[in-house]
Amino acid sequence: MTENSERIIRTGVPALEEMLGDKINVLDDGFVRVVDYMGSDESIVQAARVSYGKGTKQVSQDRGLIRYLLRNRHTTPFEMCELKLHIRVPMDCWRQWIRHRTANVNEYSTRYSVAIDAMRKTQPDEWRLQSELNKQGSLGSMDNTIGKALTQEEDNFHNACKQLYEQRLDQGVAREQARKDLPLCTYTEAYWKIDLHNLLHFLSLRMDHHAQYEIREYATAIGEKIVAKWLPLTWEAFQDYRINAMSLSGPEVILIGLLVKGEKEEAFSKAREMGWFTGGDLKPGREARELATKLDRLGLKAPW
Amino acid sequence: MTENSERIIRTGVPALEEMLGDKINVLDDGFVRVVDYMGSDESIVQAARVSYGKGTKQVSQDRGLIRYLLRNRHTTPFEMCELKLHIRVPMDCWRQWIRHRTANVNEYSTRYSVAIDAMRKTQPDEWRLQSELNKQGSLGSMDNTIGKALTQEEDNFHNACKQLYEQRLDQGVAREQARKDLPLCTYTEAYWKIDLHNLLHFLSLRMDHHAQYEIREYATAIGEKIVAKWLPLTWEAFQDYRINAMSLSGPEVILIGLLVKGEKEEAFSKAREMGWFTGGDLKPGREARELATKLDRLGLKAPW
Amino acid sequence: MTENSERIIRTGVPALEEMLGDKINVLDDGFVRVVDYMGSDESIVQAARVSYGKGTKQVSQDRGLIRYLLRNRHTTPFEMCELKLHIRVPMDCWRQWIRHRTANVNEYSTRYSVAIDAMRKTQPDEWRLQSELNKQGSLGSMDNTIGKALTQEEDNFHNACKQLYEQRLDQGVAREQARKDLPLCTYTEAYWKIDLHNLLHFLSLRMDHHAQYEIREYATAIGEKIVAKWLPLTWEAFQDYRINAMSLSGPEVILIGLLVKGEKEEAFSKAREMGWFTGGDLKPGREARELATKLDRLGLKAPW
Amino acid sequence: MTENSERIIRTGVPALEEMLGDKINVLDDGFVRVVDYMGSDESIVQAARVSYGKGTKQVSQDRGLIRYLLRNRHTTPFEMCELKLHIRVPMDCWRQWIRHRTANVNEYSTRYSVAIDAMRKTQPDEWRLQSELNKQGSLGSMDNTIGKALTQEEDNFHNACKQLYEQRLDQGVAREQARKDLPLCTYTEAYWKIDLHNLLHFLSLRMDHHAQYEIREYATAIGEKIVAKWLPLTWEAFQDYRINAMSLSGPEVILIGLLVKGEKEEAFSKAREMGWFTGGDLKPGREARELATKLDRLGLKAPW
Repeated sequence: MTENSERIIRTGVPALEEMLGDKINVLDDGFVRVVDYMGSDESIVQAARVSYGKGTKQVSQDRGLIRYLLRNRHTTPFEMCELKLHIRVPMDCWRQWIRHRTANVNEYSTRYSVAIDAMRKTQPDEWRLQSELNKQGSLGSMDNTIGKALTQEEDNFHNACKQLYEQRLDQGVAREQARKDLPLCTYTEAYWKIDLHNLLHFLSLRMDHHAQYEIREYATAIGEKIVAKWLPLTWEAFQDYRINAMSLSGPEVILIGLLVKGEKEEAFSKAREMGWFTGGDLKPGREARELATKLDRLGLKAPW
Repeated sequence: MTENSERIIRTGVPALEEMLGDKINVLDDGFVRVVDYMGSDESIVQAARVSYGKGTKQVSQDRGLIRYLLRNRHTTPFEMCELKLHIRVPMDCWRQWIRHRTANVNEYSTRYSVAIDAMRKTQPDEWRLQSELNKQGSLGSMDNTIGKALTQEEDNFHNACKQLYEQRLDQGVAREQARKDLPLCTYTEAYWKIDLHNLLHFLSLRMDHHAQYEIREYATAIGEKIVAKWLPLTWEAFQDYRINAMSLSGPEVILIGLLVKGEKEEAFSKAREMGWFTGGDLKPGREARELATKLDRLGLKAPW
Repeated sequence: MTENSERIIRTGVPALEEMLGDKINVLDDGFVRVVDYMGSDESIVQAARVSYGKGTKQVSQDRGLIRYLLRNRHTTPFEMCELKLHIRVPMDCWRQWIRHRTANVNEYSTRYSVAIDAMRKTQPDEWRLQSELNKQGSLGSMDNTIGKALTQEEDNFHNACKQLYEQRLDQGVAREQARKDLPLCTYTEAYWKIDLHNLLHFLSLRMDHHAQYEIREYATAIGEKIVAKWLPLTWEAFQDYRINAMSLSGPEVILIGLLVKGEKEEAFSKAREMGWFTGGDLKPGREARELATKLDRLGLKAPW
Repeated sequence: MTENSERIIRTGVPALEEMLGDKINVLDDGFVRVVDYMGSDESIVQAARVSYGKGTKQVSQDRGLIRYLLRNRHTTPFEMCELKLHIRVPMDCWRQWIRHRTANVNEYSTRYSVAIDAMRKTQPDEWRLQSELNKQGSLGSMDNTIGKALTQEEDNFHNACKQLYEQRLDQGVAREQARKDLPLCTYTEAYWKIDLHNLLHFLSLRMDHHAQYEIREYATAIGEKIVAKWLPLTWEAFQDYRINAMSLSGPEVILIGLLVKGEKEEAFSKAREMGWFTGGDLKPGREARELATKLDRLGLKAPW
């Protein structure tokens, strides 16, 4: 392995170099911009080959190796890449973001400096209705007349918030205390640095339709406008093995096997046995509904 | 080492068992309560002795060993203990808390449920003045007349916040969106679990007088009312080797050496050489002021 | 949520309490024993319900909630449980084990104490052949006559190792240096503590048939003899959603869709298009072989 | 803060660029070489200033800010830099190295490939004596005649090890099993990537004289030959606030205060009170000896 002791010349990834520092706008007043990065598709391959020793260099193609690694969750080579972003994001969105503990973070301090004078505004057509089915989701938009009223009230409220904050500062209240009544949607900024393995994990959770709209917008921007350009081979594999992948539980595998054989009755009673139906076995519960969606993609039909 | 294969009976720490679940009140409406824990002073000793093998059992006393470990930053045995708390804390305080990435967290979800109907109230005598010297600190209290006015305004504002939030919910706005304008000081709740090594690190940073008042109150409650009872030997060592410890930089060691010898002139010019004075060498900068405070504790006097 | 401030009585999990400290033998001279633990199936549920607030207590059953959490990778409630083991394991196996960075570890020190006088012995029927297909795996056993010879040589070699080590110690060589020529299969001991989320991740990787035999023996013992008793609901869900689960990539979903419709030709050419065949499109590559195995479980047949 | 949205041009650190890929030899056959890196002294400053907002740019100098951050353990800006090394190291040294869990690692696999054909050789003058005082340390060298004999035996033993390993491979034993009797000092190689905060922590522990000679050699090479060139300001601050710093416990501060006042008797009896002497108060224990060394540096004298 030690033969590769020759001098190393660092060459960047041109598609990413070109956009360094450029702001990618997200939401009404947020952004994401690449400040620095480390590594490329090639350095993932290089790291994987340390493990395999010299024997493999000729045989595997880069693309095939990256796909193999991602498919089989050999995650360590992906940790060899780093991305450092400068982001501007509403604090209530940042609350969700910061729960990913594996990143390095420097955030704008409203103890040290006056808070950023921007709050996330909601346009009349952006107000979302509470989903009844999914207690933590939204579904559809408010009627436009109500939307307009809500936006107007929001606007008035934000002005009141700012006034209160400024008055406190004017009277000498400490910044660390004056900020206590700023709304959760006040914008903050941060440097956020993360390795690629953990970034992909972040993206798979936050680009998902279960994620809240706001953070999904950020995740999608990072994925599609940054990672896709930075690491095209990894991004392609990520689509195939994560974004478009389907996970089947043990019971689901058995049910599909029965449906493939045309044994609908047996499949149905098996599902009932497993408690997938509620209310006298009539109403499909969550697992039954989830499988129905998967069957759809496979060209099969749920017997319920 | 393997001789200790006898049956293990788990016995708790009586002083902690007694207070399991009890609320320790913090701030106007917050609390901390122990939900579960793992380990004791003894299990720290036990873990350390795995490393040392059987040879040491008789020689070292538990207290001496714990002090040795903490003094010399042998941190792994302290990782063998865990504390799980249920806490209620204003979100702006929680923002600082959550930056400690080594803890396990389950937080109350305002996507899933209606937000907790409590905001941190500030009493007239609790309003703090901005410190001029320390840009991120506060110093002293507001005049009481102003304090009263500030508290009254805060009260009105909180009512307006609640009204806005409830109106939105009434109109069917999704909870995940309706919450966006709640004030940062809205209370949240969480289960927070952390190992002892990382807990002590948290305490040393957050019990410090540089920490913001609110989180300092929580850290002090956790330290003095929980850890002190749970692990008396570790707590004592933590006082000696962390809380009451003093760290001297290389240059400070040299300066103290000179002062001990009575060479004030040399000490002074050495400090100037190092750029510890600003404005024509007349005004002591931060390092000079810091050393002066340390010298005071050592019974020495700064020559500036 | 705050209504649950009543006193907490810690009750253990009886099935685990009973076996605390008992050695579960692994390999020729290794073991795993539970030293301590924190939490139960119930504490996972309890932590999840902090997030959901009071609304859900009646509705969800514990079993259903645990299954929901595991299925949807809501991992944080599983982090609320901890397991602390005392293990005895050959160092070459420990090298793989220690790569799981999220655990807390105290290991026996051969700097401080004389090395444990035990090396992993291989019985004549335990010698494994190098797999040709899988460069990092083994396949089948050696012929018994060769096995006997190998075991005899191993035995002689271990004696020589011990003699060398003891001679060095006798001559006063520092333990930290004398140990340098001990064989990798020398046994070591450690306390190993990990939270349940990370433990399940460890088990899913190390109980897998791709894992080396030795560590698989340890992982299986931990899973089947400890976790299964400690957390029966979680263990059942883990079987369904991890161990017996099947992951289909985006391309695999499309191919299965075609096969379900009976379009074998199209499926075949699609697979070729994706480069799943080598050597003039005749030999199925790794992805083609992997899918064939999955199809088998689903009652479908690969068209290659 | 958002004004710095201009384009970013990544410029490397010339002193580090020049040595990229060059091997720095360590021990008889090991090395360390920089494969890639991210950041510079400037990016630490840049990250810190995100927290402080625009207000501070003019005031603080880079050097002063870096020193302030390191002195006050504001660690997050240091996490913004990364170093990626390719290392070759004996496995018994690597065992200590890998205990630093915050790094990213890809190691050469002896399951996949034949083990590296190199073992750490000990020259006749390199054999170290066991320290009597420090159970986990060494002190002084062996007599040269014995050293020669030990080296000769080591050489013979290594040949026997290689022969055994090769025979097993020749007979078809799986690589994952054949390796079990390789000596702990067999060389391995790895890519090792770590952020600067954690690297400095690694260096402060492993450059210390308590660390074993072998890993100290690696740490010193990384510190003095790489970090010193890469980040001159950080390296200088690291010398002052870590390497040459002195930590005084609460009790030590009190004792020094007494000695400064010339109250030797009181200091002595205080130390005895604290149990710093063993065997009828006559023999200074570890804390007493440690303080004596510190007093020496401060120009004071222990009264024992």
